[in-house]
Amino acid sequence: MKFIRDSVHGNLQLDDFEVKLTDTPEIQRLRRIKQLGFTYLVYPGANHTRFEHSIGTMYLASRLALNLQLDEDTHSLIRCCAILHDAGHGPFSHVSEGSIESSHEELTSKLIKESQLGDILSEKFSVNEVLKVISGEGPLGHMISGELDVDRMDYLLRDSYFTGVAYGVIDVERLIYNMKLENELLLLDGKGVQAAESMLLARYFMYPSVYQHHTTRIVNSMFRRCLGKLLEKQLINEHEIYRYDDIDIISSARAVNGFIGDIMRRLDNRQLFKRVYSLKLNDIPNPEDIFKMNITSIKKAENDIALDIGAGEEYIMVDIPEYPSFHEMTTPVSVNGDIVPLGDISNLVRALKDARFNHADLCIYLPEKYSEKASELNFIDYLDIPD
Amino acid sequence: MKFIRDSVHGNLQLDDFEVKLTDTPEIQRLRRIKQLGFTYLVYPGANHTRFEHSIGTMYLASRLALNLQLDEDTHSLIRCCAILHDAGHGPFSHVSEGSIESSHEELTSKLIKESQLGDILSEKFSVNEVLKVISGEGPLGHMISGELDVDRMDYLLRDSYFTGVAYGVIDVERLIYNMKLENELLLLDGKGVQAAESMLLARYFMYPSVYQHHTTRIVNSMFRRCLGKLLEKQLINEHEIYRYDDIDIISSARAVNGFIGDIMRRLDNRQLFKRVYSLKLNDIPNPEDIFKMNITSIKKAENDIALDIGAGEEYIMVDIPEYPSFHEMTTPVSVNGDIVPLGDISNLVRALKDARFNHADLCIYLPEKYSEKASELNFIDYLDIPD
Amino acid sequence: MKFIRDSVHGNLQLDDFEVKLTDTPEIQRLRRIKQLGFTYLVYPGANHTRFEHSIGTMYLASRLALNLQLDEDTHSLIRCCAILHDAGHGPFSHVSEGSIESSHEELTSKLIKESQLGDILSEKFSVNEVLKVISGEGPLGHMISGELDVDRMDYLLRDSYFTGVAYGVIDVERLIYNMKLENELLLLDGKGVQAAESMLLARYFMYPSVYQHHTTRIVNSMFRRCLGKLLEKQLINEHEIYRYDDIDIISSARAVNGFIGDIMRRLDNRQLFKRVYSLKLNDIPNPEDIFKMNITSIKKAENDIALDIGAGEEYIMVDIPEYPSFHEMTTPVSVNGDIVPLGDISNLVRALKDARFNHADLCIYLPEKYSEKASELNFIDYLDIPD
Amino acid sequence: MKFIRDSVHGNLQLDDFEVKLTDTPEIQRLRRIKQLGFTYLVYPGANHTRFEHSIGTMYLASRLALNLQLDEDTHSLIRCCAILHDAGHGPFSHVSEGSIESSHEELTSKLIKESQLGDILSEKFSVNEVLKVISGEGPLGHMISGELDVDRMDYLLRDSYFTGVAYGVIDVERLIYNMKLENELLLLDGKGVQAAESMLLARYFMYPSVYQHHTTRIVNSMFRRCLGKLLEKQLINEHEIYRYDDIDIISSARAVNGFIGDIMRRLDNRQLFKRVYSLKLNDIPNPEDIFKMNITSIKKAENDIALDIGAGEEYIMVDIPEYPSFHEMTTPVSVNGDIVPLGDISNLVRALKDARFNHADLCIYLPEKYSEKASELNFIDYLDIPD
Repeated sequence: MKFIRDSVHGNLQLDDFEVKLTDTPEIQRLRRIKQLGFTYLVYPGANHTRFEHSIGTMYLASRLALNLQLDEDTHSLIRCCAILHDAGHGPFSHVSEGSIESSHEELTSKLIKESQLGDILSEKFSVNEVLKVISGEGPLGHMISGELDVDRMDYLLRDSYFTGVAYGVIDVERLIYNMKLENELLLLDGKGVQAAESMLLARYFMYPSVYQHHTTRIVNSMFRRCLGKLLEKQLINEHEIYRYDDIDIISSARAVNGFIGDIMRRLDNRQLFKRVYSLKLNDIPNPEDIFKMNITSIKKAENDIALDIGAGEEYIMVDIPEYPSFHEMTTPVSVNGDIVPLGDISNLVRALKDARFNHADLCIYLPEKYSEKASELNFIDYLDIPD
Repeated sequence: MKFIRDSVHGNLQLDDFEVKLTDTPEIQRLRRIKQLGFTYLVYPGANHTRFEHSIGTMYLASRLALNLQLDEDTHSLIRCCAILHDAGHGPFSHVSEGSIESSHEELTSKLIKESQLGDILSEKFSVNEVLKVISGEGPLGHMISGELDVDRMDYLLRDSYFTGVAYGVIDVERLIYNMKLENELLLLDGKGVQAAESMLLARYFMYPSVYQHHTTRIVNSMFRRCLGKLLEKQLINEHEIYRYDDIDIISSARAVNGFIGDIMRRLDNRQLFKRVYSLKLNDIPNPEDIFKMNITSIKKAENDIALDIGAGEEYIMVDIPEYPSFHEMTTPVSVNGDIVPLGDISNLVRALKDARFNHADLCIYLPEKYSEKASELNFIDYLDIPD
Repeated sequence: MKFIRDSVHGNLQLDDFEVKLTDTPEIQRLRRIKQLGFTYLVYPGANHTRFEHSIGTMYLASRLALNLQLDEDTHSLIRCCAILHDAGHGPFSHVSEGSIESSHEELTSKLIKESQLGDILSEKFSVNEVLKVISGEGPLGHMISGELDVDRMDYLLRDSYFTGVAYGVIDVERLIYNMKLENELLLLDGKGVQAAESMLLARYFMYPSVYQHHTTRIVNSMFRRCLGKLLEKQLINEHEIYRYDDIDIISSARAVNGFIGDIMRRLDNRQLFKRVYSLKLNDIPNPEDIFKMNITSIKKAENDIALDIGAGEEYIMVDIPEYPSFHEMTTPVSVNGDIVPLGDISNLVRALKDARFNHADLCIYLPEKYSEKASELNFIDYLDIPD
Repeated sequence: MKFIRDSVHGNLQLDDFEVKLTDTPEIQRLRRIKQLGFTYLVYPGANHTRFEHSIGTMYLASRLALNLQLDEDTHSLIRCCAILHDAGHGPFSHVSEGSIESSHEELTSKLIKESQLGDILSEKFSVNEVLKVISGEGPLGHMISGELDVDRMDYLLRDSYFTGVAYGVIDVERLIYNMKLENELLLLDGKGVQAAESMLLARYFMYPSVYQHHTTRIVNSMFRRCLGKLLEKQLINEHEIYRYDDIDIISSARAVNGFIGDIMRRLDNRQLFKRVYSLKLNDIPNPEDIFKMNITSIKKAENDIALDIGAGEEYIMVDIPEYPSFHEMTTPVSVNGDIVPLGDISNLVRALKDARFNHADLCIYLPEKYSEKASELNFIDYLDIPD
């Protein structure tokens, strides 16, 4: 048995099996993967890691399991799944996801199967059962990765704590207390609707403030382009992306001359690209069209712009915002014996869906030295937005 | 003007000159220097950096300056000195200090003189004046680096926040409010004695819990030995240590075969050396003797042990604890018009001095595989403690 | 000069004039007026007072004044108005407002004019100017009592702190930083829209959780009825309601036999009335109709019910919910040089307006011993809801 | 089952039996007994009550019981004892203790025996067993009322939270985790010494800042004198002091003319007596002598002073400080199998004992209008300090 002091949840207890799992190089690597990638260039406290988050998710999973009165084995299973749920994340977490084909959930499964993690797990559990939970299947899967999951509860609290942005403070106690298992379905009790609304709002507010903060988007775009080039040149092996940590990527990039090294030097020195164009999605007839733009068309826009201002095409970045998904609409809520989707009984949740493009814009970034030239361009003409 | 959101102090405001200073690569590098070195292997939240700390120190310096009613220029000077005060820190902060000859204060001065920092500063201040303050001279120097300085206030609060260890919570408001300038002397008002006691106790408690936590000492010893070898092999240039960041050292070490790479792999995977011996300083007649041991004598002990258990001598680590200094005894306190040393009027402070070796021990660490052999040795026989 | 330690905002500084104002019996009385009335029967920590809130509002007013760069005199005026803004509150704050004719703002004005407060104020300010600000007129009035005022910021933070309900945590720094004065108009800058949304949501969530929590409504109804009877019997002088504190009312009520004493005994022992009926406003075609019910019609319903279950008519309580006002819709926001109402640019604020009856219901309460009989009644038949 | 939201510990759960106990008028009365008496005149947020503290103590008792792995019945017993442990407190908590003969522990026992509390308890427990625990006997008694008890942990945290004085923040988790039961003895494990030291220091710092703050002592002296006179005149029944709440005493006092009413008016309006004399205990050869002064001798001093300045003798208050007890010296600590007193292994605890008179002084208070006359007196001459 061992205690880990977590700055968000306090002293967290791990049993011997959990210690064994946590002490593997695969989980220890998460100590060197920043939870929010390069967001520390915007919020200097945002240096927290996937490791802390994984342990914190374990803790919340445990509280939920206690509330649901799961038997001891299932309780233990859900804790271990929480520890493992992000093991497949590449360097800088989600930031690297844009550059690789598989999702971090798929990579986590692959890693478990091919590493000692699978062997250790098989001492106590069916590995297939673990993989099912981690991929979000069934009520146990929903606990960790669903609409109102402990993963999200932990990251909202944790990202708030480390960035210093208060929006993510949520009422975890009320949420967990109002979740229940009925007929293999993880439900929210009607009394918890407000706590759920509050959590969705927390996420809604964290997006423009932190996750999609305009400077965060610039640094992420810079890094993603840099990583893409590293993969292209096979200096990093995409299929083993979950073996690398943040340090590997940065030091690899620093060692390369030309574009890759230049971008990394800019990130190191916080000499960021400038945003020269912003197209608010709410200002176009059908915002969804933006998400239909394909890579070829984006590349073409970048090339054309590059040509017209005399820059290398890799220096022009057209940045499509993250698609604002709203799975929460369908969260099952138990109201007087009926099960209804959250979106049906909460006009706030519906309002959030309506407001989902409020802070979304397509942006174009480039190095400061081209700003002046860029100011003469009519960027909309370069974009081929399908409808 | 610009705001930086600090997770400890809230929104901190910087004027244009301060932004210019902060935007240099020399200060941006501090974003990649962890405040507490490898302590994140013990407290997973301890990933905060010298950058945050420098900005936070600037904020507290400003509050103290307001309370002391310094004129605008001096106020600005002290803020800029706070931003710069740790610029010379090597990778992993204090952990690297053991391996290099100059103190981080000396290196900060050197860096300022030879980099653009000096040029920028000279636009507004006398660089010599800045260097004087940063080296802790005069009442302004004492504000940042003295017995009850804002540097310490910030790091106690910050290290508490990020490790989750509550001991460092101190009453900054009361402390700052009770400091005054009289005849070029920075004094504590008698009414602030309790707040000062409380701060010294905070530090006293943070030592064994965080700064000299026994596992922290093991990882620091491992890293220091590793860094020493990198310097020996001239893979790192000691004279430019303030040009490197944490990433440089880790990636350099990973790239080397043999001992260096092995240690770094162990740190990455948290496969730590074991403590096989602990000699409590309070158990020997004169604890001060321990600090008289010279490097030759320590090296000899390590070599002899290595020989007897059949290990490479670099794998044996004799770790002398940090000397517990008590400059606080002499903090000048103004009591009814007289100036008396804090130690004279606070029996608590005297008690802390008496208790200064309570948590101090000389330790020996080595890889786990030698533990059994080590259990047969009588370590005290290997140590040549002078008196 | 003096410091007051506030548990929410830290050490707050008052100058000599403010100390003089605060040291009057009129302001000291606020130490004995609970901010949230009988809410401590629901949230046991909710014992905070109008005094703390007034000082806290002064502090936030000061921060806003600094941000707006008001001149020293106006800054001082707004601080003093904040100290005074709730001086006319009757015992148990808003709970007593239902039983008396004047609003607390009117009573505050009356009190200032007839007490030494007016004399003291006139040493430094025009009393008329003070009365104007306190009644919410002009840009200074809006700072304290408008759509996004410092009064509300303080009470949300404070009520959260003392009840332990996290919903009221708001980003005061960002809000204050984004307010500006233009052409005698207090405006929100476009960049502050999200902070404003967040504050309105905080209030939205605090309503059902705290302010209109169903048990809070029961205890408030009981107390209001009790206070009404005390006023009827002229045991309390309505015209001097701002001279009484919570203790006066409770001890007066305890001393009376019959209904008044009985209700007070029940409140003391937390033997609360039961809710036997709840008519959700969203379940009737036009929720606004509920607010058209007049006192005669409500009294009649109570009498009829009392007759049918054989109880005294004062024991039946028909409770109309508080009307959910939405002045925030019209908060002026400055966007690219134009001034637009907040409701026009925030679909979230509009959604809140649409959701304003979500948690509102007309309730009927009576003593537990009548619960069984009450279960046979068809309450809707007793209510004469106009349309 | 029921939840109570506590602002310090979060959502606290009570089972049906605990709800029944808590819902008695005897326990509900604690909602109207301020935890820190009139301290709200010094720290305006200090309006928290014995009720919250009792529920909070129950929560910590529960955590300790879980750690000690007590069986379910004993766990339940200790929780109920914690709920009840302060039920016998008179109005304004400890402040009234000075004026009555029995301790609050004795009164709690008496109250339990003669009220329905005893009947309810006997449904589940042996009442004698409960009384034994509440009076601090045996290891269970020590959990609630010993050297390092949960009562103290709760009040330090809670008093810090509501006053806003940070000193009381302690590491409850580490403390509770390091307590163990061995051979019917509640022990501190050696690893918990530092957490224990930290808690004793918290208390040490809270004394001069809060509990014995010089203004707190003035208001407490005023109230105690007032209460004494109420008892003398039999307006309050000493033998039933646990039936009254804060409101009873204040309204009784307000209703009396002369001295009693005058003092209460002064407390209401915060027109406090002035301290005209302070004799620091460290400044006399043997501080212990002060505590040998008997009531007759104190009364005589007050009378003599009154005569010489022409005031009523009840207006002169000689205030002996609270005796700083140090039971903590004897807390049993388990070190390598031996049980040693805490004082033997902690030089910090010894230092606290040595410093116990640091903030202690004998004071004399009287109304401001006599201050000038008082300045001519040589107060030491009036005091007959035995040796």
